[in-house]
This record gives sequence, C-alpha cells and structure tokens, in this order.
Amino acid sequence: MGDPRPIGVFDSGIGGLTVLKALWERLPNESTLYLGDTARVPYGTKSAEVVTRYTEQNARFLIERDIKLLVVACNTASAVALPHLERRLQVPVLGVISPGAQAAAERSRSGRIGVIGTAGTIRSGAYARALEAVRPGVEVVGKACPLFVALAEEGWVSGEVPRLVAREYLAELKDAGVDTLVLGCTHYPLLKPLLHTLLGADVRLIDSAEETAAETARVLAEAGLDAPNDARPTYRFVCSDDPARFLTLGQRFLGGAIDHVERHPLG
Amino acid sequence: MGDPRPIGVFDSGIGGLTVLKALWERLPNESTLYLGDTARVPYGTKSAEVVTRYTEQNARFLIERDIKLLVVACNTASAVALPHLERRLQVPVLGVISPGAQAAAERSRSGRIGVIGTAGTIRSGAYARALEAVRPGVEVVGKACPLFVALAEEGWVSGEVPRLVAREYLAELKDAGVDTLVLGCTHYPLLKPLLHTLLGADVRLIDSAEETAAETARVLAEAGLDAPNDARPTYRFVCSDDPARFLTLGQRFLGGAIDHVERHPLG
Repeated sequence: MGDPRPIGVFDSGIGGLTVLKALWERLPNESTLYLGDTARVPYGTKSAEVVTRYTEQNARFLIERDIKLLVVACNTASAVALPHLERRLQVPVLGVISPGAQAAAERSRSGRIGVIGTAGTIRSGAYARALEAVRPGVEVVGKACPLFVALAEEGWVSGEVPRLVAREYLAELKDAGVDTLVLGCTHYPLLKPLLHTLLGADVRLIDSAEETAAETARVLAEAGLDAPNDARPTYRFVCSDDPARFLTLGQRFLGGAIDHVERHPLG
Repeated sequence: MGDPRPIGVFDSGIGGLTVLKALWERLPNESTLYLGDTARVPYGTKSAEVVTRYTEQNARFLIERDIKLLVVACNTASAVALPHLERRLQVPVLGVISPGAQAAAERSRSGRIGVIGTAGTIRSGAYARALEAVRPGVEVVGKACPLFVALAEEGWVSGEVPRLVAREYLAELKDAGVDTLVLGCTHYPLLKPLLHTLLGADVRLIDSAEETAAETARVLAEAGLDAPNDARPTYRFVCSDDPARFLTLGQRFLGGAIDHVERHPLG
C-alpha cells in the first residue's frame, strides 16, 4: 500500500532547499514538490498580515497539486502563519519552528538558549513561545540578523566581513552566556562554520532542517501516509519568478540534484 | 491657472523617499502622492518580467488617483520597465536612470564612469545604454552592491563593517580609474559620506534624486502642468504593507515630514 503523493514544501525563496535536502536524506522513498516564492522574497522584513496572505496562496497552490503533507520550510512563515494554515488545511502541516525549539530545549544544559533569525521571526516571539511550551522557565535571547541573508546569498560566508558582522550580532548572545543557538532562518546553515568558530565548541548550533525532517517522518508514519516501499520518488520544483536564477542557486544548495524548474506566478 | 493634481511617485519601498524629498525642495508648490510597494520589496533581486508586472500595477494605482505626471523613483523599475510604461500611460513618465546618466556624462572629464546599483539594475545595462546615448564612447564600469541596501536599512552607514564591504565593492571601480560614480540605487545616498571618504575628492558622486527633480521641473513647465502659484501642496503616502513600519522609516528618511500613511494591498 502506501501513499505515493508528494510532500509539499514551500519557502519564500531558495533557503528552504536546506530543509528539502534533509527530507530527501531522511525519507528516500518520498516524492517532493517544492515551491519557492521568489517573486516576493524575502518574507523576513514584511508584516505578519502580508506573510500570512502569501503563505496561504502558496499552501493553496500546493494543495491543488495534491500533496499529502505540507512543510512550511520558512521560519518567518512558520512563525506568523502556521496556526492560520492548520485551521484551514485538510492535510498535516509542519513548520520549522517547533522541531528546532524541541531539539534546542532538549539539548541545552543551562536552559539559556539563543535564537537568531529575520526581523519578522524574532519580532513574532514564536521561538520563545515554542521553547517555553516545551521547557517552562527557559531563558531565551533572540537577535535579528538581517545582514546574514544578504551575506549568504552573496556567497560571503567566510573572511573578514562576515566575521565582523557575525561578531557584532553575536555579542549579546555571548554576553548572555547561551549554551545553545537555534539557527532560525534557513539561510543561516551556510554560515555554520563561521558561527561555530566565533561561539566555540561549548555552544551547540541547532539546524532546524534535520529536526523538521525527523518530525516529518514521524507524522507520516503516524498518519499512515508513508510512500510505498518500492516507490520511485519524483522531485519537482516551482518558483514564482525566473526559473533560471532559481536553478543556479538551487544547484548550489542541493549539489546539482535539480535540473528543471517550472514557473508559476502567484498572487 | 495651473494644474493642482499631484505628482505620482513610486518605489519598491522607502528608498524613493530620497527622490520625493528632492522634489519637495525643487517644486515647493507641487502636491505629491507617494506609493511604496513594501509588500513586495525589494525589486533589485527579481527578474525583469516580475518587476515590470509590479511596476505596471503601481502605475495603474497612481493613475487611478489622478496624478498628472509619474516619477518612477526606483532604479530597478526604471532600468527594466520604463519603455513599457511610457507606451501605456497618458501622462508624462520619468525614471531616475536618464537624469543620473545625463548628469554623469556631463560632469565626467575622463569619460570613465562607474555605476553601482542592485543586481537587477546592473544586469539590465540600462545606465550603460543611457550614458552611451548621451556621450558616445564613454567607458562604463558597473558593479552590483547588494549588501549596501541591507547596510543602509540596518543603519550601518559608518564604521568598520560598511567600510570593509564598500572597499570590497569599490575595488574594481578604483582600479578602473573612474572619475565619476553614479549612485544607482535610492538607498545609496545614505552611504555617501563613506563612499566619498573611500574614493577621495577626485571622484564625483552623482545622486539621481536631485537630477530627477530638476528634470521633473523641466517637464512640468514644458507641458504646462505646473501647480498654481498659490497652491497649498498636499503630501500623501500609500504603502502595500504595514503603514507603521513605513512611517518609522519614512520619518528617518524625510526628517519627520510625514504623519500618516494609508495602506493598499497590491497584486
């Protein structure tokens, strides 16, 4: 038996491909349909109302293409629009906040946890709420790092400029003595080596991508939605702006495992 | 007599307020209606097709509110969508590229001119074409500086980080020996003191805002569209995302001369 329909994954752009890659590794039988809203990226600087509207349009697009489960692979959209989606959709919906918060809460010894993300994600307080729900009394220090996305997209992930920018952003977190840091934006894993060097081995970095893939596997199994054992998975990509640019950046994120991108205008 | 209708001005976000300010200074009798497409900002990373679609929606919104002239106060939109708009609109349309190029071509002694802007603006080659049209044989060195917008919005316009970023971006332009540099993005004037320090007094910086205001004055006069001499100008603002954030940033750009912003979803 099994359910051969694809898992739907969306992000405001290409950052969610880090989550997609983790899903492929964790669930090699599952087909995926990825949507990048590149015509309206980024979401991190926009209001909750606008992000919710875009999120609903993205979800509707994927639902119409018959997905069996939806992964919101965008921290900002997960932070502000997940309950809204859960109320409206008939398929299971997962965001990246709760799996990341769960992992951080479990692994922190001191209970002092740092969260970095876009302005929208940090302002929403979604990580603080999710952490508090899992581990009451936890101390959460949030810090918006808007330049990190620009640096990651520019390919400036090591060297003097990113080091100085990161040092500036991380100062508060270091002073607060966090022992765990949630990378609350799908672009940030590209800066992981740099963050690791600056923070030292005593601070654990939590990358939501792997945690979200593990949670997806659990939900699929529980709901009896796993793909058939003999399934030959298909990987499809759609974006709302120029497929050529998505393809170039996508190959960088996924190591070449992407050769065609459809275009579909949204909104 | 005179024509009391407002001048329509739009930008992808708040950057165009530098152009608006120059218009107010140059044309104190004119009313303005400013639209910031903050729900879809930025345009600089998006394809020509998408930017053209957004630009047309913005223009239509302003035209419906009875403007007498349209200023496209966004370099990316001017670079890729101006001819498209000119063919479709019944009112005069001005972009920021041509006035900036005109001024640079006139003031450069050596004929070696640098242009910095978003990826979209530089990729379009619009400044190079405009410069070549005014001054055939001119040598144009374009450089996309995507981090500058993030720095300006973060308020990091002086100090070590912006200095290093700017040094990196400007290296090619310095090596090429340009004697004039067009600030081809409305955010960049905020970095002017830093750029001036790094490039030295021998390199002239061209800020399109003032040039565009001067050109607007000329076009209004020629077309007999000037406001009445006794006009009491009104300044209205509309944006497509959260007015509160637009207001905060707008006050920073305009020095307080903005107290109300309407919201209108676009697209």
